[in-house]
Amino acid sequence: MTQGRKRSTVRIGVDRWTEEGWDSRRDRVVVEEPLEIRIDTPAGSGRAERAVSVTMRTPGDDFALAAGFLFAEGLLGGRRDLVDLRYCSGEDPQEFNVVTATLRRPVDPALLTRHFYTTSSCGVCGKASIEAVEAQVGACSPLPRGSLRLSPAVILGLPDRLREAQAVFERTGGLHAAGLFDAAGGVVEVKEDVGRHNAVDKVVGGALLTGRLPLQDHVLVVSGRTSFEIVQKAAVAGIPALVAVGAPSSLAVELAKSFGLTLAGFVRGGSFNLYAGAERVEGGS
Amino acid sequence: MTQGRKRSTVRIGVDRWTEEGWDSRRDRVVVEEPLEIRIDTPAGSGRAERAVSVTMRTPGDDFALAAGFLFAEGLLGGRRDLVDLRYCSGEDPQEFNVVTATLRRPVDPALLTRHFYTTSSCGVCGKASIEAVEAQVGACSPLPRGSLRLSPAVILGLPDRLREAQAVFERTGGLHAAGLFDAAGGVVEVKEDVGRHNAVDKVVGGALLTGRLPLQDHVLVVSGRTSFEIVQKAAVAGIPALVAVGAPSSLAVELAKSFGLTLAGFVRGGSFNLYAGAERVEGGS
Repeated sequence: MTQGRKRSTVRIGVDRWTEEGWDSRRDRVVVEEPLEIRIDTPAGSGRAERAVSVTMRTPGDDFALAAGFLFAEGLLGGRRDLVDLRYCSGEDPQEFNVVTATLRRPVDPALLTRHFYTTSSCGVCGKASIEAVEAQVGACSPLPRGSLRLSPAVILGLPDRLREAQAVFERTGGLHAAGLFDAAGGVVEVKEDVGRHNAVDKVVGGALLTGRLPLQDHVLVVSGRTSFEIVQKAAVAGIPALVAVGAPSSLAVELAKSFGLTLAGFVRGGSFNLYAGAERVEGGS
Repeated sequence: MTQGRKRSTVRIGVDRWTEEGWDSRRDRVVVEEPLEIRIDTPAGSGRAERAVSVTMRTPGDDFALAAGFLFAEGLLGGRRDLVDLRYCSGEDPQEFNVVTATLRRPVDPALLTRHFYTTSSCGVCGKASIEAVEAQVGACSPLPRGSLRLSPAVILGLPDRLREAQAVFERTGGLHAAGLFDAAGGVVEVKEDVGRHNAVDKVVGGALLTGRLPLQDHVLVVSGRTSFEIVQKAAVAGIPALVAVGAPSSLAVELAKSFGLTLAGFVRGGSFNLYAGAERVEGGS
């Protein structure tokens, strides 16, 4: 499982305008390139390989990204189902843009098209989206209350700790981050990506590859806003608390409540909002 | 083409923590719900309907969103190809989460799976992504230089004008915005959505439905960072200039250069960076 060596930032020439006029300089931008994720599964007496996604991502932690994506989609149940991860063989740099996961078992074909909740009825809705996640998480839903407890002071400090751990952001200003922290606010892992969902997939996939799932004693911190899909990825990974610098959407709040997941947002300037799961926060009600 | 009446924000109860302790209040969050987009096309002697996407979106301008999405994907060539847009019939609110576009002509089946650039080779790369857009835009690539000229002062003022025109953001803090402006910085249209790509689709789709494509005398302004897909959507709509509050990715810059599209970023605090298309900016070189 060696990983490709592609750069995550690149220097380019830009013209900068300030009140003093134009100035040419070289500046770093974050690299965005497609990653095709394929699965190789048993089929009949042989095996079959098929592409399941192309995501625009920042190179780095590609195997974690692929594993995290497949796990979030329900195509990979855990480390044990994974035989191997590999890039396309060869010397061409672009061959590091295709990752194939060899799986021990066939996948349910329905999962490959599950984003289409309906085929002929009119019944696509937020509730159906939540039920689809519930069906996926299955016996783990709602999340057990567990032992994780967070103090307001720890929650308030998490965004700064995430930012401090971001290696690439300071150089480009163009990256989302997702980080895993313990109850005391200690950093466990931080990943960055041009795509917000990818950053979360890298964190969860990294934990899967090192046998650390489910992550029931951890809090996930994200640099931006919280959407349905971010909460989904946290819930599937068994993460009981999610802290975001920005605002959540209505469906993110509904899904968090439905799963008993603690959700905080607008963590900035000495205050924050708690939208769900107050029982894991000191003084929450 | 009547549109459904779903709310774009909703009030929920939150616990707020400040230095003075906990406080319960009601707060607005932005609504996020799935929208299934279907196409109804001629098939044999009859017609066939199929789902082509489910996107998580903020309700409002659903027809513009569907039209803009189908246009960006190459499934809809223009207003003339569109017979009708409709919601699923009925009274159930969730039936406003499915929009069907009736198209005059069949679509190329390859377009329905075009996100998979390869099937057996290793050749997925940024260059292939750019070539896919070039093939789609076809004869219009690169964009003609045209008559649009922007002054640095206009560029500097665009983010504030976008923010001023945002109706929902101030109430929730949870929305991306995309806006169409003229060369003098006058606002033509601003759309908001929980998804950044959706906001651009709503702007372009709205222009398509009112017969205003291509948008060669306009500048597109986005509230966040610029990805490959945002530049793609601008290029397909013939928009020659893109101004972003945040940073671009490497592939966004490459695509802008490849199309001769003017791309500015980091527009804040009295300065900005110009990454491509300097010939449309006064004093640019």
